[in-house]
Amino acid sequence: MAVQKSAQPAKSVPDSTRRSEKSRRAIYDAALALVVEVGYPKTTIEGIAARAGVGKQTIYRWWSSKADVLMEAFLDLGERPLGEVKPEPYAFPDTGDVAADVKDVLRATVDQLRDPRFEAPSRALAAEGVVNEQLGRELVAKLMQPSLDLYIGRLRAAQEAGQVRPDVDPRIALEFFVSPLAQRWLQHTGPISYEYTDTLVDYALQGLAPR
Amino acid sequence: MAVQKSAQPAKSVPDSTRRSEKSRRAIYDAALALVVEVGYPKTTIEGIAARAGVGKQTIYRWWSSKADVLMEAFLDLGERPLGEVKPEPYAFPDTGDVAADVKDVLRATVDQLRDPRFEAPSRALAAEGVVNEQLGRELVAKLMQPSLDLYIGRLRAAQEAGQVRPDVDPRIALEFFVSPLAQRWLQHTGPISYEYTDTLVDYALQGLAPR
Repeated sequence: MAVQKSAQPAKSVPDSTRRSEKSRRAIYDAALALVVEVGYPKTTIEGIAARAGVGKQTIYRWWSSKADVLMEAFLDLGERPLGEVKPEPYAFPDTGDVAADVKDVLRATVDQLRDPRFEAPSRALAAEGVVNEQLGRELVAKLMQPSLDLYIGRLRAAQEAGQVRPDVDPRIALEFFVSPLAQRWLQHTGPISYEYTDTLVDYALQGLAPR
Repeated sequence: MAVQKSAQPAKSVPDSTRRSEKSRRAIYDAALALVVEVGYPKTTIEGIAARAGVGKQTIYRWWSSKADVLMEAFLDLGERPLGEVKPEPYAFPDTGDVAADVKDVLRATVDQLRDPRFEAPSRALAAEGVVNEQLGRELVAKLMQPSLDLYIGRLRAAQEAGQVRPDVDPRIALEFFVSPLAQRWLQHTGPISYEYTDTLVDYALQGLAPR
Protein backbone atom coordinates (compact mmCIF):
# COMPACT_ATOMS: atom_id res chain seq x y z
CA MET A 1 0.00 0.00 0.00
CA ALA A 2 3.07 2.26 0.20
CA VAL A 3 3.14 3.41 -3.40
CA GLN A 4 5.08 6.67 -3.68
CA LYS A 5 3.20 9.35 -5.52
CA SER A 6 6.47 10.81 -6.79
CA ALA A 7 7.14 7.62 -8.74
CA GLN A 8 4.21 8.26 -11.07
CA PRO A 9 3.54 11.96 -11.06
CA ALA A 10 1.52 12.17 -14.26
CA LYS A 11 -1.00 9.50 -13.29
CA SER A 12 -1.17 10.20 -9.56
CA VAL A 13 -4.81 11.32 -9.48
CA PRO A 14 -6.39 8.54 -11.51
CA ASP A 15 -4.17 5.95 -9.82
CA SER A 16 -5.14 7.06 -6.35
CA THR A 17 -8.78 7.02 -7.41
CA ARG A 18 -8.35 3.48 -8.66
CA ARG A 19 -6.49 2.54 -5.49
CA SER A 20 -9.21 4.07 -3.35
CA GLU A 21 -11.92 2.30 -5.29
CA LYS A 22 -10.08 -1.01 -4.99
CA SER A 23 -9.54 -0.49 -1.24
CA ARG A 24 -13.14 0.52 -0.74
CA ARG A 25 -14.37 -2.62 -2.50
CA ALA A 26 -11.92 -4.80 -0.52
CA ILE A 27 -13.15 -3.23 2.72
CA TYR A 28 -16.80 -3.85 1.82
CA ASP A 29 -16.09 -7.47 0.89
CA ALA A 30 -14.10 -8.03 4.08
CA ALA A 31 -16.81 -6.49 6.26
CA LEU A 32 -19.59 -8.59 4.68
CA ALA A 33 -17.52 -11.78 4.92
CA LEU A 34 -16.55 -11.16 8.55
CA VAL A 35 -20.04 -10.41 9.80
CA VAL A 36 -21.15 -13.74 8.33
CA GLU A 37 -18.21 -15.70 9.73
CA VAL A 38 -17.85 -14.31 13.24
CA GLY A 39 -21.08 -12.34 13.77
CA TYR A 40 -21.58 -8.64 14.29
CA PRO A 41 -20.27 -8.34 17.87
CA LYS A 42 -16.88 -9.85 16.94
CA THR A 43 -16.52 -7.97 13.67
CA THR A 44 -14.03 -5.14 14.29
CA ILE A 45 -12.49 -2.34 12.27
CA GLU A 46 -9.11 -4.02 12.92
CA GLY A 47 -10.40 -7.33 11.56
CA ILE A 48 -11.89 -5.70 8.49
CA ALA A 49 -8.65 -3.81 7.82
CA ALA A 50 -6.52 -6.94 8.17
CA ARG A 51 -8.74 -8.96 5.87
CA ALA A 52 -8.97 -6.18 3.31
CA GLY A 53 -5.20 -5.65 3.38
CA VAL A 54 -5.48 -1.97 4.29
CA GLY A 55 -4.47 0.06 7.31
CA LYS A 56 -6.99 0.76 10.06
CA GLN A 57 -6.59 4.48 9.36
CA THR A 58 -7.77 3.95 5.79
CA ILE A 59 -11.07 2.74 7.19
CA TYR A 60 -11.35 5.48 9.82
CA ARG A 61 -10.71 8.08 7.12
CA TRP A 62 -13.95 7.09 5.39
CA TRP A 63 -16.19 5.62 8.08
CA SER A 64 -16.77 6.30 11.75
CA SER A 65 -17.84 2.80 12.85
CA LYS A 66 -18.17 -0.81 11.77
CA ALA A 67 -21.92 -0.26 11.49
CA ASP A 68 -21.28 2.47 8.92
CA VAL A 69 -18.94 0.26 6.92
CA LEU A 70 -21.46 -2.59 6.89
CA MET A 71 -24.38 -0.41 5.87
CA GLU A 72 -22.46 1.15 3.02
CA ALA A 73 -21.27 -2.30 1.99
CA PHE A 74 -24.90 -3.31 1.68
CA LEU A 75 -25.88 -0.23 -0.27
CA ASP A 76 -22.93 -0.90 -2.59
CA LEU A 77 -23.96 -4.55 -3.01
CA GLY A 78 -27.37 -3.37 -4.17
CA GLU A 79 -25.71 -1.25 -6.85
CA ARG A 80 -23.47 -3.95 -8.32
CA PRO A 81 -24.62 -5.84 -11.41
CA LEU A 82 -26.70 -8.72 -10.11
CA GLY A 83 -26.54 -11.19 -12.98
CA GLU A 84 -30.06 -12.48 -13.36
CA VAL A 85 -31.27 -10.41 -10.46
CA LYS A 86 -32.58 -6.89 -10.90
CA PRO A 87 -31.66 -4.42 -8.16
CA GLU A 88 -34.59 -2.99 -6.23
CA PRO A 89 -35.86 -0.01 -8.17
CA TYR A 90 -34.87 3.43 -6.95
CA ALA A 91 -38.06 4.87 -8.35
CA PHE A 92 -41.25 2.96 -7.64
CA PRO A 93 -42.99 2.16 -10.92
CA ASP A 94 -46.19 4.07 -11.61
CA THR A 95 -48.06 2.59 -14.54
CA GLY A 96 -51.36 3.84 -13.15
CA ASP A 97 -52.18 0.34 -11.80
CA VAL A 98 -51.12 0.22 -8.16
CA ALA A 99 -51.67 -3.54 -7.85
CA ALA A 100 -49.41 -4.27 -10.83
CA ASP A 101 -46.75 -1.85 -9.62
CA VAL A 102 -46.58 -3.21 -6.07
CA LYS A 103 -46.48 -6.79 -7.42
CA ASP A 104 -43.59 -5.79 -9.66
CA VAL A 105 -41.59 -4.32 -6.77
CA LEU A 106 -42.32 -7.27 -4.48
CA ARG A 107 -41.16 -9.73 -7.16
CA ALA A 108 -37.86 -7.83 -7.31
CA THR A 109 -37.64 -8.07 -3.50
CA VAL A 110 -38.24 -11.82 -3.70
CA ASP A 111 -35.36 -12.05 -6.19
CA GLN A 112 -33.11 -10.08 -3.89
CA LEU A 113 -34.00 -12.14 -0.81
CA ARG A 114 -33.09 -15.25 -2.78
CA ASP A 115 -29.77 -13.85 -4.01
CA PRO A 116 -27.09 -15.85 -2.17
CA ARG A 117 -24.78 -12.80 -2.05
CA PHE A 118 -27.33 -10.99 0.12
CA GLU A 119 -28.61 -13.90 2.17
CA ALA A 120 -25.91 -14.49 4.78
CA PRO A 121 -24.81 -10.88 5.44
CA SER A 122 -28.43 -9.68 5.48
CA ARG A 123 -29.31 -12.29 8.07
CA ALA A 124 -26.25 -11.53 10.20
CA LEU A 125 -27.07 -7.83 10.33
CA ALA A 126 -30.82 -8.36 10.81
CA ALA A 127 -30.20 -10.79 13.67
CA GLU A 128 -27.98 -8.28 15.45
CA GLY A 129 -30.61 -5.59 14.92
CA VAL A 130 -33.12 -7.75 16.83
CA VAL A 131 -31.06 -7.71 20.03
CA ASN A 132 -29.20 -4.40 19.51
CA GLU A 133 -31.80 -1.67 19.33
CA GLN A 134 -29.37 1.07 18.35
CA LEU A 135 -28.09 -0.91 15.37
CA GLY A 136 -31.65 -1.98 14.56
CA ARG A 137 -32.73 1.64 14.34
CA GLU A 138 -29.72 2.49 12.14
CA LEU A 139 -30.61 -0.36 9.81
CA VAL A 140 -34.15 0.94 9.54
CA ALA A 141 -33.09 4.54 8.94
CA LYS A 142 -30.33 3.82 6.44
CA LEU A 143 -31.30 0.60 4.69
CA MET A 144 -35.10 0.28 4.97
CA GLN A 145 -36.57 3.79 5.19
CA PRO A 146 -35.66 4.80 1.62
CA SER A 147 -37.68 1.82 0.29
CA LEU A 148 -40.55 2.46 2.68
CA ASP A 149 -40.69 6.08 1.52
CA LEU A 150 -41.08 4.88 -2.06
CA TYR A 151 -44.05 2.73 -1.00
CA ILE A 152 -45.58 5.72 0.79
CA GLY A 153 -45.18 7.88 -2.31
CA ARG A 154 -46.75 5.25 -4.56
CA LEU A 155 -49.67 4.69 -2.17
CA ARG A 156 -50.32 8.45 -1.95
CA ALA A 157 -50.45 8.59 -5.75
CA ALA A 158 -52.91 5.68 -5.66
CA GLN A 159 -55.03 7.60 -3.17
CA GLU A 160 -55.09 10.60 -5.50
CA ALA A 161 -56.05 8.28 -8.35
CA GLY A 162 -58.90 6.79 -6.29
CA GLN A 163 -57.34 3.29 -6.13
CA VAL A 164 -56.66 3.42 -2.39
CA ARG A 165 -59.10 4.81 0.20
CA PRO A 166 -58.21 8.36 1.24
CA ASP A 167 -58.56 7.62 4.98
CA VAL A 168 -55.85 4.91 4.89
CA ASP A 169 -52.45 5.73 6.45
CA PRO A 170 -49.89 4.71 3.78
CA ARG A 171 -47.21 4.05 6.44
CA ILE A 172 -49.40 1.34 7.95
CA ALA A 173 -50.86 0.11 4.64
CA LEU A 174 -47.42 -0.62 3.19
CA GLU A 175 -46.84 -3.14 5.98
CA PHE A 176 -49.35 -5.51 4.36
CA PHE A 177 -46.91 -5.70 1.44
CA VAL A 178 -43.55 -5.74 3.18
CA SER A 179 -44.10 -7.31 6.62
CA PRO A 180 -45.50 -10.73 5.70
CA LEU A 181 -42.67 -11.27 3.21
CA ALA A 182 -40.11 -10.00 5.75
CA GLN A 183 -41.40 -12.34 8.44
CA ARG A 184 -41.41 -15.41 6.17
CA TRP A 185 -37.83 -14.64 5.23
CA LEU A 186 -36.52 -13.61 8.66
CA GLN A 187 -38.25 -16.20 10.79
CA HIS A 188 -38.55 -19.08 8.31
CA THR A 189 -42.32 -19.11 8.77
CA GLY A 190 -43.16 -19.98 5.18
CA PRO A 191 -41.95 -20.21 1.58
CA ILE A 192 -41.42 -17.14 -0.59
CA SER A 193 -42.61 -16.94 -4.21
CA TYR A 194 -44.03 -14.52 -6.76
CA GLU A 195 -47.40 -16.22 -6.40
CA TYR A 196 -47.32 -15.54 -2.67
CA THR A 197 -46.45 -11.85 -2.97
CA ASP A 198 -49.03 -11.40 -5.76
CA THR A 199 -51.63 -12.89 -3.40
CA LEU A 200 -50.65 -10.48 -0.62
CA VAL A 201 -51.28 -7.53 -2.93
CA ASP A 202 -54.68 -8.83 -4.04
CA TYR A 203 -55.82 -9.62 -0.49
CA ALA A 204 -54.57 -6.26 0.86
CA LEU A 205 -56.31 -4.18 -1.77
CA GLN A 206 -59.57 -6.13 -1.87
CA GLY A 207 -59.70 -6.92 1.85
CA LEU A 208 -60.58 -10.17 3.54
CA ALA A 209 -64.27 -9.33 4.02
CA PRO A 210 -66.73 -9.95 1.18
CA ARG A 211 -67.47 -6.93 -1.02
CA MET B 1 -28.48 -33.57 44.85
CA ALA B 2 -27.67 -36.95 46.37
CA VAL B 3 -30.69 -37.19 48.66
CA GLN B 4 -31.24 -40.80 49.63
CA LYS B 5 -34.76 -42.00 49.10
CA SER B 6 -34.44 -44.37 52.02
CA ALA B 7 -34.07 -41.38 54.36
CA GLN B 8 -37.66 -40.25 53.84
CA PRO B 9 -39.66 -43.26 52.73
CA ALA B 10 -43.13 -41.95 53.55
CA LYS B 11 -42.81 -38.62 51.77
CA SER B 12 -40.52 -39.71 48.95
CA VAL B 13 -43.01 -39.21 46.13
CA PRO B 14 -44.32 -35.73 47.00
CA ASP B 15 -40.83 -34.56 47.98
CA SER B 16 -39.26 -35.72 44.77
CA THR B 17 -42.08 -34.07 42.84
CA ARG B 18 -41.42 -30.83 44.70
CA ARG B 19 -37.69 -31.22 44.13
CA SER B 20 -38.26 -31.90 40.45
CA GLU B 21 -40.57 -28.93 40.13
CA LYS B 22 -38.07 -26.69 41.87
CA SER B 23 -35.20 -27.97 39.69
CA ARG B 24 -37.26 -27.58 36.56
CA ARG B 25 -38.07 -23.99 37.39
CA ALA B 26 -34.43 -23.26 38.27
CA ILE B 27 -33.33 -24.77 34.96
CA TYR B 28 -35.84 -22.67 33.01
CA ASP B 29 -34.76 -19.48 34.79
CA ALA B 30 -31.08 -20.28 34.23
CA ALA B 31 -31.62 -21.01 30.54
CA LEU B 32 -33.56 -17.79 29.94
CA ALA B 33 -31.02 -15.70 31.85
CA LEU B 34 -28.04 -17.26 30.05
CA VAL B 35 -29.40 -16.83 26.55
CA VAL B 36 -29.85 -13.14 27.31
CA GLU B 37 -26.42 -12.71 28.88
CA VAL B 38 -24.17 -14.70 26.56
CA GLY B 39 -26.36 -15.38 23.52
CA TYR B 40 -27.65 -18.65 22.15
CA PRO B 41 -24.39 -20.03 20.69
CA LYS B 42 -22.58 -19.78 24.04
CA THR B 43 -25.48 -21.07 26.12
CA THR B 44 -24.65 -24.67 27.02
CA ILE B 45 -26.29 -27.46 28.98
CA GLU B 46 -23.27 -27.31 31.31
CA GLY B 47 -23.77 -23.59 31.87
CA ILE B 48 -27.48 -23.99 32.50
CA ALA B 49 -26.82 -26.83 34.97
CA ALA B 50 -24.17 -24.84 36.86
CA ARG B 51 -26.37 -21.76 37.13
CA ALA B 52 -29.42 -23.78 38.15
CA GLY B 53 -27.40 -25.71 40.75
CA VAL B 54 -28.27 -29.10 39.28
CA GLY B 55 -26.25 -31.86 37.67
CA LYS B 56 -25.92 -32.00 33.88
CA GLN B 57 -27.59 -35.40 33.97
CA THR B 58 -30.70 -33.88 35.55
CA ILE B 59 -31.10 -31.76 32.44
CA TYR B 60 -30.35 -34.59 30.01
CA ARG B 61 -32.91 -36.75 31.79
CA TRP B 62 -35.68 -34.33 30.76
CA TRP B 63 -34.44 -32.60 27.62
CA SER B 64 -32.35 -33.62 24.63
CA SER B 65 -30.85 -30.22 23.77
CA LYS B 66 -30.49 -26.62 24.90
CA ALA B 67 -33.03 -25.65 22.25
CA ASP B 68 -35.56 -27.95 23.92
CA VAL B 69 -34.86 -26.47 27.35
CA LEU B 70 -35.27 -22.93 26.04
CA MET B 71 -38.48 -23.62 24.19
CA GLU B 72 -40.06 -25.29 27.20
CA ALA B 73 -38.84 -22.42 29.36
CA PHE B 74 -40.76 -20.08 27.09
CA LEU B 75 -43.89 -22.17 27.12
CA ASP B 76 -43.67 -22.28 30.91
CA LEU B 77 -43.19 -18.50 31.09
CA GLY B 78 -46.42 -18.09 29.15
CA GLU B 79 -48.24 -20.18 31.74
CA ARG B 80 -47.01 -18.32 34.82
CA PRO B 81 -49.22 -15.63 36.34
CA LEU B 82 -48.40 -12.44 34.51
CA GLY B 83 -49.50 -9.74 36.95
CA GLU B 84 -51.33 -7.18 34.85
CA VAL B 85 -50.65 -9.10 31.69
CA LYS B 86 -53.03 -11.73 30.39
CA PRO B 87 -51.41 -14.79 28.83
CA GLU B 88 -52.20 -15.33 25.18
CA PRO B 89 -55.47 -17.21 25.02
CA TYR B 90 -55.31 -20.91 24.32
CA ALA B 91 -58.69 -20.79 22.64
CA PHE B 92 -59.26 -17.96 20.19
CA PRO B 93 -62.35 -15.99 21.23
CA ASP B 94 -65.38 -16.41 19.00
CA THR B 95 -68.05 -13.84 19.82
CA GLY B 96 -69.37 -13.98 16.27
CA ASP B 97 -67.54 -10.73 15.40
CA VAL B 98 -64.23 -11.66 13.80
CA ALA B 99 -62.89 -8.09 13.87
CA ALA B 100 -63.50 -7.74 17.61
CA ASP B 101 -62.03 -11.17 18.33
CA VAL B 102 -58.83 -10.62 16.36
CA LYS B 103 -58.40 -7.17 17.94
CA ASP B 104 -58.76 -8.76 21.35
CA VAL B 105 -56.07 -11.35 20.66
CA LEU B 106 -53.70 -8.81 19.12
CA ARG B 107 -54.06 -6.54 22.16
CA ALA B 108 -53.02 -9.47 24.35
CA THR B 109 -50.03 -10.01 22.04
CA VAL B 110 -49.08 -6.34 22.40
CA ASP B 111 -49.19 -6.78 26.19
CA GLN B 112 -46.97 -9.84 25.95
CA LEU B 113 -44.44 -8.17 23.64
CA ARG B 114 -44.19 -5.33 26.16
CA ASP B 115 -43.73 -7.65 29.14
CA PRO B 116 -40.11 -7.18 30.24
CA ARG B 117 -39.86 -10.82 31.30
CA PHE B 118 -40.41 -11.90 27.69
CA GLU B 119 -38.55 -9.12 25.92
CA ALA B 120 -34.87 -10.05 26.28
CA PRO B 121 -35.12 -13.86 26.02
CA SER B 122 -37.60 -13.59 23.13
CA ARG B 123 -35.24 -11.33 21.25
CA ALA B 124 -32.21 -13.54 21.95
CA LEU B 125 -33.98 -16.62 20.60
CA ALA B 126 -35.56 -14.83 17.65
CA ALA B 127 -32.20 -13.34 16.64
CA GLU B 128 -30.58 -16.76 16.64
CA GLY B 129 -33.48 -18.13 14.60
CA VAL B 130 -32.70 -15.57 11.88
CA VAL B 131 -29.20 -16.95 11.27
CA ASN B 132 -29.76 -20.55 12.39
CA GLU B 133 -32.41 -22.04 10.13
CA GLN B 134 -32.77 -25.27 12.07
CA LEU B 135 -33.47 -23.43 15.32
CA GLY B 136 -35.69 -20.97 13.43
CA ARG B 137 -37.83 -23.83 12.16
CA GLU B 138 -38.05 -25.34 15.65
CA LEU B 139 -39.19 -22.00 17.05
CA VAL B 140 -41.88 -21.80 14.41
CA ALA B 141 -43.07 -25.37 14.94
CA LYS B 142 -43.07 -25.32 18.73
CA LEU B 143 -43.69 -21.72 19.75
CA MET B 144 -45.52 -20.05 16.85
CA GLN B 145 -47.52 -22.71 15.02
CA PRO B 146 -49.99 -23.35 17.85
CA SER B 147 -50.99 -19.66 17.78
CA LEU B 148 -51.11 -19.57 13.98
CA ASP B 149 -53.41 -22.60 14.02
CA LEU B 150 -55.80 -20.73 16.31
CA TYR B 151 -55.92 -17.86 13.81
CA ILE B 152 -56.59 -20.32 11.00
CA GLY B 153 -59.46 -21.88 12.95
CA ARG B 154 -61.00 -18.50 13.75
CA LEU B 155 -60.69 -17.31 10.13
CA ARG B 156 -62.31 -20.53 8.87
CA ALA B 157 -65.22 -19.95 11.23
CA ALA B 158 -65.47 -16.38 9.89
CA GLN B 159 -65.57 -17.77 6.36
CA GLU B 160 -68.44 -20.06 7.33
CA ALA B 161 -70.20 -17.08 8.91
CA GLY B 162 -69.74 -15.02 5.74
CA GLN B 163 -67.43 -12.46 7.37
CA VAL B 164 -64.35 -13.50 5.39
CA ARG B 165 -64.38 -14.30 1.66
CA PRO B 166 -64.46 -18.04 0.99
CA ASP B 167 -61.63 -17.90 -1.57
CA VAL B 168 -59.13 -16.44 0.93
CA ASP B 169 -56.37 -18.74 2.24
CA PRO B 170 -56.47 -18.30 6.04
CA ARG B 171 -52.76 -19.17 6.37
CA ILE B 172 -51.88 -16.15 4.26
CA ALA B 173 -54.65 -13.90 5.59
CA LEU B 174 -53.49 -14.28 9.19
CA GLU B 175 -50.17 -12.69 8.20
CA PHE B 176 -51.90 -9.31 7.87
CA PHE B 177 -52.58 -9.53 11.59
CA VAL B 178 -49.37 -11.06 12.93
CA SER B 179 -46.58 -10.04 10.52
CA PRO B 180 -46.76 -6.23 10.71
CA LEU B 181 -46.76 -6.39 14.52
CA ALA B 182 -43.93 -8.95 14.48
CA GLN B 183 -41.81 -6.81 12.17
CA ARG B 184 -42.31 -3.61 14.20
CA TRP B 185 -41.27 -5.49 17.30
CA LEU B 186 -38.39 -7.52 15.82
CA GLN B 187 -36.84 -4.89 13.61
CA HIS B 188 -37.75 -1.72 15.53
CA THR B 189 -39.54 -0.37 12.47
CA GLY B 190 -42.31 1.38 14.40
CA PRO B 191 -44.16 1.76 17.69
CA ILE B 192 -46.62 -0.85 18.97
CA SER B 193 -50.01 0.05 20.43
CA TYR B 194 -53.61 -1.16 20.67
CA GLU B 195 -54.62 1.59 18.25
CA TYR B 196 -52.10 0.28 15.73
CA THR B 197 -53.22 -3.34 15.92
CA ASP B 198 -56.90 -2.30 15.80
CA THR B 199 -56.08 -0.38 12.61
CA LEU B 200 -54.41 -3.42 11.07
CA VAL B 201 -57.56 -5.46 11.61
CA ASP B 202 -59.82 -2.81 10.08
CA TYR B 203 -57.57 -2.29 7.05
CA ALA B 204 -57.15 -6.03 6.49
CA LEU B 205 -60.83 -6.82 6.60
CA GLN B 206 -62.02 -3.80 4.61
CA GLY B 207 -59.08 -3.70 2.19
CA LEU B 208 -57.13 -0.70 1.01
CA ALA B 209 -59.19 -0.15 -2.16
CA PRO B 210 -62.43 1.84 -1.96
CA ARG B 211 -65.56 -0.26 -1.57
